[in-house]
Amino acid sequence: MRSRGESAPLPKVNLAELTPKLMPYLGQAAYLQLSFFEAASRLTAEAVEVQDKLALALTAGQMLDKHQQLVAEIHRHGGVPSEVMEPFAARIDGYSAMVRGANWHESLTSIYLTAGLLDDFFTFLAAGLANGNGPKMVQIHALGSQRKEIAQILSRAISADQRLGSQLAMWGRRVVGDTLLMARSAIHQSGNAVSDELKIEPVFTEVIAAHTRRMDGLGLTA
Amino acid sequence: MRSRGESAPLPKVNLAELTPKLMPYLGQAAYLQLSFFEAASRLTAEAVEVQDKLALALTAGQMLDKHQQLVAEIHRHGGVPSEVMEPFAARIDGYSAMVRGANWHESLTSIYLTAGLLDDFFTFLAAGLANGNGPKMVQIHALGSQRKEIAQILSRAISADQRLGSQLAMWGRRVVGDTLLMARSAIHQSGNAVSDELKIEPVFTEVIAAHTRRMDGLGLTA
Repeated sequence: MRSRGESAPLPKVNLAELTPKLMPYLGQAAYLQLSFFEAASRLTAEAVEVQDKLALALTAGQMLDKHQQLVAEIHRHGGVPSEVMEPFAARIDGYSAMVRGANWHESLTSIYLTAGLLDDFFTFLAAGLANGNGPKMVQIHALGSQRKEIAQILSRAISADQRLGSQLAMWGRRVVGDTLLMARSAIHQSGNAVSDELKIEPVFTEVIAAHTRRMDGLGLTA
Repeated sequence: MRSRGESAPLPKVNLAELTPKLMPYLGQAAYLQLSFFEAASRLTAEAVEVQDKLALALTAGQMLDKHQQLVAEIHRHGGVPSEVMEPFAARIDGYSAMVRGANWHESLTSIYLTAGLLDDFFTFLAAGLANGNGPKMVQIHALGSQRKEIAQILSRAISADQRLGSQLAMWGRRVVGDTLLMARSAIHQSGNAVSDELKIEPVFTEVIAAHTRRMDGLGLTA
Protein backbone atom coordinates (compact mmCIF):
# COMPACT_ATOMS: atom_id res chain seq x y z
CA MET A 1 0.00 0.00 0.00
CA ARG A 2 1.41 3.34 -1.03
CA SER A 3 0.51 6.52 0.72
CA ARG A 4 -0.33 8.91 -2.10
CA GLY A 5 -0.84 12.13 -0.19
CA GLU A 6 -3.75 13.02 -2.46
CA SER A 7 -6.68 15.03 -1.25
CA ALA A 8 -8.97 15.25 -4.31
CA PRO A 9 -11.40 12.35 -4.80
CA LEU A 10 -10.22 9.47 -6.96
CA PRO A 11 -12.43 6.89 -8.65
CA LYS A 12 -13.55 4.00 -6.51
CA VAL A 13 -12.04 1.30 -8.70
CA ASN A 14 -8.47 0.98 -7.49
CA LEU A 15 -6.01 1.14 -10.34
CA ALA A 16 -3.01 1.95 -8.18
CA GLU A 17 -1.13 -1.08 -9.48
CA LEU A 18 -1.47 0.12 -13.04
CA THR A 19 1.06 2.88 -13.28
CA PRO A 20 0.74 4.72 -16.56
CA LYS A 21 3.69 6.96 -17.35
CA LEU A 22 2.83 10.64 -17.08
CA MET A 23 3.94 11.94 -20.49
CA PRO A 24 2.21 9.29 -22.63
CA TYR A 25 -0.89 9.76 -20.46
CA LEU A 26 -0.82 13.53 -21.00
CA GLY A 27 0.02 13.26 -24.69
CA GLN A 28 -2.91 10.97 -25.40
CA ALA A 29 -5.33 12.83 -23.17
CA ALA A 30 -4.38 16.23 -24.65
CA TYR A 31 -4.60 15.03 -28.25
CA LEU A 32 -7.94 13.31 -27.59
CA GLN A 33 -9.44 16.51 -26.22
CA LEU A 34 -8.10 18.39 -29.24
CA SER A 35 -9.78 15.81 -31.41
CA PHE A 36 -13.10 16.15 -29.52
CA PHE A 37 -12.76 19.91 -29.90
CA GLU A 38 -12.29 19.55 -33.66
CA ALA A 39 -15.39 17.36 -33.92
CA ALA A 40 -17.52 19.63 -31.73
CA SER A 41 -16.51 22.76 -33.60
CA ARG A 42 -17.25 21.08 -36.93
CA LEU A 43 -20.73 20.28 -35.60
CA THR A 44 -21.05 23.91 -34.50
CA ALA A 45 -20.29 25.06 -38.03
CA GLU A 46 -22.72 22.52 -39.53
CA ALA A 47 -25.61 23.34 -37.15
CA VAL A 48 -28.58 24.88 -38.92
CA GLU A 49 -30.13 26.67 -35.93
CA VAL A 50 -28.27 29.57 -34.34
CA GLN A 51 -29.38 28.29 -30.93
CA ASP A 52 -27.70 24.92 -31.60
CA LYS A 53 -24.57 26.72 -32.73
CA LEU A 54 -24.46 28.61 -29.44
CA ALA A 55 -24.88 25.43 -27.42
CA LEU A 56 -22.28 23.47 -29.38
CA ALA A 57 -19.79 26.34 -29.31
CA LEU A 58 -20.01 26.16 -25.50
CA THR A 59 -19.25 22.44 -25.58
CA ALA A 60 -16.40 22.92 -28.05
CA GLY A 61 -14.99 25.61 -25.77
CA GLN A 62 -15.01 23.25 -22.78
CA MET A 63 -13.15 20.60 -24.76
CA LEU A 64 -10.61 23.18 -25.91
CA ASP A 65 -10.22 24.31 -22.31
CA LYS A 66 -9.47 20.74 -21.22
CA HIS A 67 -7.01 20.34 -24.07
CA GLN A 68 -5.23 23.55 -23.08
CA GLN A 69 -5.10 22.60 -19.41
CA LEU A 70 -3.52 19.27 -20.35
CA VAL A 71 -1.04 21.09 -22.63
CA ALA A 72 -0.18 23.34 -19.67
CA GLU A 73 0.49 20.20 -17.59
CA ILE A 74 2.86 18.91 -20.28
CA HIS A 75 4.71 22.26 -20.11
CA ARG A 76 4.74 22.23 -16.32
CA HIS A 77 6.36 18.79 -16.33
CA GLY A 78 9.03 19.89 -18.77
CA GLY A 79 7.61 18.40 -21.97
CA VAL A 80 7.24 19.97 -25.41
CA PRO A 81 3.50 19.60 -26.12
CA SER A 82 3.67 18.93 -29.86
CA GLU A 83 6.40 16.32 -29.34
CA VAL A 84 4.55 14.62 -26.50
CA MET A 85 1.32 14.41 -28.54
CA GLU A 86 2.86 13.54 -31.91
CA PRO A 87 3.26 9.75 -31.35
CA PHE A 88 -0.50 9.40 -30.75
CA ALA A 89 -1.76 11.71 -33.49
CA ALA A 90 -2.15 9.18 -36.31
CA ARG A 91 -3.88 6.56 -34.18
CA ILE A 92 -6.31 9.07 -32.63
CA ASP A 93 -6.99 10.69 -36.02
CA GLY A 94 -7.82 7.24 -37.39
CA TYR A 95 -10.13 6.53 -34.49
CA SER A 96 -11.86 9.91 -34.90
CA ALA A 97 -12.46 9.22 -38.57
CA MET A 98 -13.98 5.82 -37.73
CA VAL A 99 -16.48 7.25 -35.25
CA ARG A 100 -17.20 10.40 -37.24
CA GLY A 101 -20.63 9.27 -38.43
CA ALA A 102 -22.47 9.77 -41.69
CA ASN A 103 -24.53 12.81 -40.72
CA TRP A 104 -24.92 15.56 -38.14
CA HIS A 105 -26.97 13.50 -35.67
CA GLU A 106 -24.64 10.53 -35.86
CA SER A 107 -21.66 12.81 -35.32
CA LEU A 108 -23.40 14.45 -32.35
CA THR A 109 -24.13 11.02 -30.87
CA SER A 110 -20.51 10.02 -31.37
CA ILE A 111 -19.02 13.02 -29.67
CA TYR A 112 -21.44 12.63 -26.77
CA LEU A 113 -20.71 8.93 -26.27
CA THR A 114 -17.00 8.84 -27.07
CA ALA A 115 -16.02 11.91 -25.07
CA GLY A 116 -18.17 10.54 -22.23
CA LEU A 117 -16.55 7.12 -22.26
CA LEU A 118 -12.98 8.29 -22.76
CA ASP A 119 -13.23 11.07 -20.15
CA ASP A 120 -14.40 8.39 -17.71
CA PHE A 121 -11.61 6.07 -18.78
CA PHE A 122 -8.84 8.65 -18.45
CA THR A 123 -10.27 9.60 -15.07
CA PHE A 124 -9.90 5.98 -13.91
CA LEU A 125 -6.45 5.70 -15.48
CA ALA A 126 -5.38 8.83 -13.55
CA ALA A 127 -5.59 6.87 -10.30
CA GLY A 128 -2.37 5.07 -11.19
CA LEU A 129 -0.27 8.14 -11.96
CA ALA A 130 2.70 8.49 -9.63
CA ASN A 131 3.76 11.53 -7.57
CA GLY A 132 0.26 12.72 -6.76
CA ASN A 133 -0.50 13.71 -10.36
CA GLY A 134 -3.83 11.84 -10.43
CA PRO A 135 -6.22 14.30 -8.76
CA LYS A 136 -5.29 17.15 -11.10
CA MET A 137 -6.08 14.93 -14.11
CA VAL A 138 -9.37 13.86 -12.54
CA GLN A 139 -10.24 17.51 -12.05
CA ILE A 140 -9.39 18.47 -15.63
CA HIS A 141 -11.41 15.60 -17.06
CA ALA A 142 -14.42 16.49 -14.91
CA LEU A 143 -14.76 19.89 -16.59
CA GLY A 144 -18.08 20.12 -18.46
CA SER A 145 -18.24 16.34 -18.45
CA GLN A 146 -22.04 16.28 -18.56
CA ARG A 147 -22.18 17.74 -22.05
CA LYS A 148 -25.80 18.70 -21.33
CA GLU A 149 -26.04 20.89 -24.42
CA ILE A 150 -25.46 17.91 -26.73
CA ALA A 151 -27.75 15.65 -24.71
CA GLN A 152 -30.56 18.18 -24.98
CA ILE A 153 -30.26 18.60 -28.74
CA LEU A 154 -30.17 14.81 -29.21
CA SER A 155 -33.02 14.02 -26.82
CA ARG A 156 -35.25 16.55 -28.55
CA ALA A 157 -34.47 15.11 -32.00
CA ILE A 158 -34.87 11.49 -30.85
CA SER A 159 -38.19 12.02 -29.12
CA ALA A 160 -39.50 13.73 -32.27
CA ASP A 161 -38.42 10.96 -34.65
CA GLN A 162 -38.54 7.30 -33.66
CA ARG A 163 -36.70 6.18 -36.76
CA LEU A 164 -33.81 8.50 -35.94
CA GLY A 165 -33.81 6.92 -32.48
CA SER A 166 -33.25 3.39 -33.75
CA GLN A 167 -30.66 4.56 -36.25
CA LEU A 168 -28.70 6.32 -33.49
CA ALA A 169 -29.07 3.38 -31.09
CA MET A 170 -27.42 1.14 -33.69
CA TRP A 171 -24.73 3.72 -34.33
CA GLY A 172 -24.09 4.06 -30.59
CA ARG A 173 -23.48 0.30 -30.31
CA ARG A 174 -20.89 0.45 -33.06
CA VAL A 175 -19.16 3.49 -31.65
CA VAL A 176 -18.74 1.94 -28.21
CA GLY A 177 -16.86 -1.02 -29.67
CA ASP A 178 -14.31 1.18 -31.43
CA THR A 179 -13.99 3.34 -28.34
CA LEU A 180 -13.28 0.42 -26.01
CA LEU A 181 -10.52 -0.71 -28.37
CA MET A 182 -9.15 2.82 -28.27
CA ALA A 183 -9.21 2.80 -24.47
CA ARG A 184 -7.51 -0.60 -24.34
CA SER A 185 -4.72 0.55 -26.63
CA ALA A 186 -4.27 3.68 -24.49
CA ILE A 187 -3.17 1.47 -21.60
CA HIS A 188 -0.36 -0.10 -23.59
CA GLN A 189 0.61 3.25 -25.09
CA SER A 190 0.91 4.58 -21.55
CA GLY A 191 3.67 2.13 -20.82
CA ASN A 192 1.68 -0.75 -19.36
CA ALA A 193 2.19 -4.37 -20.26
CA VAL A 194 -0.40 -6.54 -21.98
CA SER A 195 -0.57 -8.51 -18.73
CA ASP A 196 -2.09 -5.45 -17.07
CA GLU A 197 -5.28 -6.03 -19.02
CA LEU A 198 -6.76 -8.22 -16.33
CA LYS A 199 -6.35 -5.43 -13.81
CA ILE A 200 -8.25 -3.11 -16.09
CA GLU A 201 -11.36 -5.29 -16.44
CA PRO A 202 -13.25 -3.68 -13.51
CA VAL A 203 -12.68 -0.31 -15.12
CA PHE A 204 -14.24 -1.49 -18.37
CA THR A 205 -17.26 -2.71 -16.40
CA GLU A 206 -17.60 0.76 -14.87
CA VAL A 207 -17.19 2.75 -18.06
CA ILE A 208 -19.63 0.52 -19.92
CA ALA A 209 -22.20 0.99 -17.15
CA ALA A 210 -21.81 4.76 -17.41
CA HIS A 211 -22.10 4.49 -21.20
CA THR A 212 -25.36 2.55 -20.84
CA ARG A 213 -26.72 5.27 -18.55
CA ARG A 214 -25.85 7.88 -21.18
CA MET A 215 -27.66 5.87 -23.88
CA ASP A 216 -30.68 5.47 -21.57
CA GLY A 217 -30.65 9.18 -20.85
CA LEU A 218 -31.01 9.89 -24.56
CA GLY A 219 -33.84 7.37 -24.85
CA LEU A 220 -31.66 4.87 -26.73
CA THR A 221 -31.32 1.14 -26.02
CA ALA A 222 -27.66 0.32 -25.42
CA MET B 1 -20.46 67.80 -28.68
CA ARG B 2 -21.65 65.12 -26.32
CA SER B 3 -19.83 64.23 -23.17
CA ARG B 4 -19.51 60.46 -23.25
CA GLY B 5 -18.02 59.79 -19.82
CA GLU B 6 -15.85 57.04 -21.28
CA SER B 7 -12.45 56.25 -19.86
CA ALA B 8 -11.12 53.47 -22.13
CA PRO B 9 -9.33 54.60 -25.31
CA LEU B 10 -11.46 54.97 -28.41
CA PRO B 11 -10.22 55.03 -32.00
CA LYS B 12 -8.97 58.38 -33.21
CA VAL B 13 -11.39 58.67 -36.14
CA ASN B 14 -14.45 60.31 -34.67
CA LEU B 15 -17.57 58.36 -35.52
CA ALA B 16 -19.67 59.91 -32.77
CA GLU B 17 -22.24 61.10 -35.30
CA LEU B 18 -22.76 57.56 -36.57
CA THR B 19 -24.86 55.95 -33.89
CA PRO B 20 -25.21 52.22 -34.51
CA LYS B 21 -27.94 50.60 -32.45
CA LEU B 22 -26.55 48.35 -29.75
CA MET B 23 -28.39 45.08 -30.44
CA PRO B 24 -27.73 44.93 -34.20
CA TYR B 25 -24.13 45.83 -33.46
CA LEU B 26 -23.81 43.03 -30.91
CA GLY B 27 -25.71 40.50 -33.03
CA GLN B 28 -23.44 41.04 -36.02
CA ALA B 29 -20.25 41.21 -34.00
CA ALA B 30 -21.09 38.04 -32.02
CA TYR B 31 -22.09 36.05 -35.11
CA LEU B 32 -18.98 37.22 -36.97
CA GLN B 33 -16.73 35.99 -34.17
CA LEU B 34 -18.61 32.68 -34.15
CA SER B 35 -18.00 32.46 -37.86
CA PHE B 36 -14.27 33.23 -37.44
CA PHE B 37 -14.15 30.58 -34.72
CA GLU B 38 -15.74 28.02 -37.06
CA ALA B 39 -13.18 28.80 -39.78
CA ALA B 40 -10.22 28.73 -37.38
CA SER B 41 -11.27 25.42 -35.83
CA ARG B 42 -11.76 23.89 -39.28
CA LEU B 43 -8.20 24.95 -40.10
CA THR B 44 -7.07 23.41 -36.80
CA ALA B 45 -8.64 20.11 -37.80
CA GLU B 46 -7.13 20.27 -41.28
CA ALA B 47 -3.61 21.15 -40.10
CA VAL B 48 -1.07 18.41 -40.82
CA GLU B 49 1.49 19.32 -38.15
CA VAL B 50 0.59 18.92 -34.48
CA GLN B 51 2.43 22.18 -33.77
CA ASP B 52 0.19 24.05 -36.23
CA LYS B 53 -2.87 22.46 -34.62
CA LEU B 54 -1.76 23.76 -31.23
CA ALA B 55 -1.21 27.27 -32.58
CA LEU B 56 -4.50 27.39 -34.47
CA ALA B 57 -6.46 25.95 -31.54
CA LEU B 58 -5.19 28.91 -29.50
CA THR B 59 -6.43 31.34 -32.14
CA ALA B 60 -9.78 29.56 -32.42
CA GLY B 61 -10.10 29.75 -28.64
CA GLN B 62 -9.55 33.52 -28.66
CA MET B 63 -12.24 33.97 -31.29
CA LEU B 64 -14.62 31.79 -29.29
CA ASP B 65 -13.82 33.84 -26.21
CA LYS B 66 -14.68 37.07 -28.06
CA HIS B 67 -17.90 35.50 -29.32
CA GLN B 68 -18.86 34.45 -25.80
CA GLN B 69 -18.06 37.85 -24.33
CA LEU B 70 -20.28 39.48 -26.95
CA VAL B 71 -23.03 36.92 -26.20
CA ALA B 72 -22.68 37.84 -22.51
CA GLU B 73 -23.17 41.51 -23.47
CA ILE B 74 -26.36 40.64 -25.35
CA HIS B 75 -27.60 38.88 -22.19
CA ARG B 76 -26.56 41.78 -19.98
CA HIS B 77 -28.55 44.20 -22.12
CA GLY B 78 -31.65 42.00 -21.96
CA GLY B 79 -31.42 40.34 -25.38
CA VAL B 80 -31.84 36.67 -26.33
CA PRO B 81 -28.54 35.88 -28.08
CA SER B 82 -29.87 33.48 -30.73
CA GLU B 83 -32.67 35.94 -31.65
CA VAL B 84 -30.34 38.90 -31.76
CA MET B 85 -27.88 37.05 -34.04
CA GLU B 86 -30.40 35.27 -36.27
CA PRO B 87 -31.15 38.17 -38.67
CA PHE B 88 -27.47 38.34 -39.65
CA ALA B 89 -26.73 34.61 -39.89
CA ALA B 90 -27.52 34.05 -43.58
CA ARG B 91 -25.62 37.10 -44.79
CA ILE B 92 -22.55 36.34 -42.69
CA ASP B 93 -22.63 32.63 -43.66
CA GLY B 94 -22.74 33.69 -47.31
CA TYR B 95 -19.80 36.03 -46.80
CA SER B 96 -17.80 33.32 -44.97
CA ALA B 97 -18.39 30.90 -47.84
CA MET B 98 -17.18 33.52 -50.35
CA VAL B 99 -13.91 34.14 -48.52
CA ARG B 100 -13.35 30.51 -47.52
CA GLY B 101 -10.59 29.88 -50.06
CA ALA B 102 -9.73 26.82 -52.12
CA ASN B 103 -7.09 25.32 -49.85
CA TRP B 104 -5.60 25.48 -46.36
CA HIS B 105 -3.22 28.37 -47.05
CA GLU B 106 -5.90 30.47 -48.76
CA SER B 107 -8.25 29.81 -45.84
CA LEU B 108 -5.54 30.78 -43.35
CA THR B 109 -4.89 33.99 -45.28
CA SER B 110 -8.60 34.73 -45.30
CA ILE B 111 -9.12 34.31 -41.60
CA TYR B 112 -6.04 36.42 -40.90
CA LEU B 113 -7.10 39.26 -43.19
CA THR B 114 -10.85 39.23 -42.66
CA ALA B 115 -10.79 38.92 -38.88
CA GLY B 116 -8.13 41.63 -38.85
CA LEU B 117 -10.13 44.02 -41.01
CA LEU B 118 -13.51 43.38 -39.38
CA ASP B 119 -12.14 43.56 -35.83
CA ASP B 120 -10.70 46.96 -36.76
CA PHE B 121 -13.97 48.00 -38.34
CA PHE B 122 -16.14 46.98 -35.39
CA THR B 123 -13.69 48.76 -33.10
CA PHE B 124 -14.22 51.99 -35.06
CA LEU B 125 -17.96 51.44 -35.19
CA ALA B 126 -18.02 51.04 -31.40
CA ALA B 127 -17.16 54.74 -31.04
CA GLY B 128 -20.70 55.65 -32.00
CA LEU B 129 -22.50 53.39 -29.52
CA ALA B 130 -24.58 55.34 -27.02
CA ASN B 131 -24.57 55.10 -23.22
CA GLY B 132 -20.86 54.47 -22.84
CA ASN B 133 -21.05 51.03 -24.43
CA GLY B 134 -18.19 51.71 -26.84
CA PRO B 135 -15.10 51.08 -24.69
CA LYS B 136 -16.24 47.61 -23.64
CA MET B 137 -16.67 46.64 -27.30
CA VAL B 138 -13.25 48.07 -28.15
CA GLN B 139 -11.78 45.99 -25.33
CA ILE B 140 -13.48 42.77 -26.48
CA HIS B 141 -12.36 43.25 -30.08
CA ALA B 142 -8.77 43.91 -28.99
CA LEU B 143 -8.46 40.39 -27.51
CA GLY B 144 -5.83 38.38 -29.39
CA SER B 145 -6.18 40.77 -32.29
CA GLN B 146 -2.62 40.23 -33.49
CA ARG B 147 -3.28 36.61 -34.47
CA LYS B 148 0.49 36.07 -34.38
CA GLU B 149 0.12 32.29 -34.60
CA ILE B 150 -1.50 32.52 -38.04
CA ALA B 151 0.94 35.19 -39.21
CA GLN B 152 3.89 32.99 -38.27
CA ILE B 153 2.58 29.92 -40.08
CA LEU B 154 1.84 31.99 -43.19
CA SER B 155 5.12 33.93 -43.20
CA ARG B 156 7.08 30.70 -42.96
CA ALA B 157 5.17 29.11 -45.85
CA ILE B 158 5.39 32.24 -48.02
CA SER B 159 9.12 32.75 -47.55
CA ALA B 160 9.67 29.09 -48.50
CA ASP B 161 7.57 29.19 -51.67
CA GLN B 162 7.49 32.29 -53.86
CA ARG B 163 4.70 30.92 -56.02
CA LEU B 164 2.49 30.44 -52.97
CA GLY B 165 3.27 34.07 -52.11
CA SER B 166 1.92 35.44 -55.38
CA GLN B 167 -1.12 33.16 -55.22
CA LEU B 168 -1.93 34.39 -51.71
CA ALA B 169 -1.30 38.04 -52.62
CA MET B 170 -3.92 37.72 -55.37
CA TRP B 171 -6.31 35.96 -53.02
CA GLY B 172 -5.79 38.67 -50.38
CA ARG B 173 -6.80 41.34 -52.88
CA ARG B 174 -10.02 39.54 -53.66
CA VAL B 175 -10.84 38.90 -50.03
CA VAL B 176 -10.47 42.53 -49.05
CA GLY B 177 -13.09 43.61 -51.61
CA ASP B 178 -15.70 41.21 -50.24
CA THR B 179 -14.83 42.22 -46.70
CA LEU B 180 -15.22 45.94 -47.33
CA LEU B 181 -18.66 45.26 -48.80
CA MET B 182 -19.46 43.26 -45.67
CA ALA B 183 -18.32 46.15 -43.48
CA ARG B 184 -20.35 48.64 -45.49
CA SER B 185 -23.49 46.57 -45.16
CA ALA B 186 -22.90 46.23 -41.41
CA ILE B 187 -23.39 49.99 -41.07
CA HIS B 188 -26.84 49.86 -42.62
CA GLN B 189 -27.75 46.73 -40.69
CA SER B 190 -26.84 48.57 -37.51
CA GLY B 191 -29.59 51.09 -38.17
CA ASN B 192 -27.68 53.77 -40.07
CA ALA B 193 -28.90 55.48 -43.20
CA VAL B 194 -27.22 55.22 -46.60
CA SER B 195 -26.39 58.94 -46.21
CA ASP B 196 -24.08 58.00 -43.34
CA GLU B 197 -21.69 56.45 -45.83
CA LEU B 198 -19.79 59.68 -46.33
CA LYS B 199 -19.11 59.86 -42.62
CA ILE B 200 -17.63 56.38 -42.74
CA GLU B 201 -15.09 57.08 -45.50
CA PRO B 202 -12.23 58.03 -43.10
CA VAL B 203 -12.79 54.71 -41.33
CA PHE B 204 -12.38 52.79 -44.56
CA THR B 205 -9.15 54.66 -45.21
CA GLU B 206 -7.88 53.56 -41.78
CA VAL B 207 -8.92 49.91 -42.03
CA ILE B 208 -7.44 49.60 -45.53
CA ALA B 209 -4.15 51.06 -44.27
CA ALA B 210 -4.07 48.49 -41.45
CA HIS B 211 -4.92 45.75 -43.95
CA THR B 212 -2.00 46.84 -46.16
CA ARG B 213 0.32 46.66 -43.15
CA ARG B 214 -0.90 43.09 -42.48
CA MET B 215 -0.22 42.10 -46.09
CA ASP B 216 3.27 43.70 -45.91
CA GLY B 217 3.92 41.83 -42.67
CA LEU B 218 3.29 38.55 -44.42
CA GLY B 219 5.56 39.55 -47.30
CA LEU B 220 2.63 40.03 -49.68
CA THR B 221 2.00 43.00 -51.98
CA ALA B 222 -1.41 44.49 -51.20
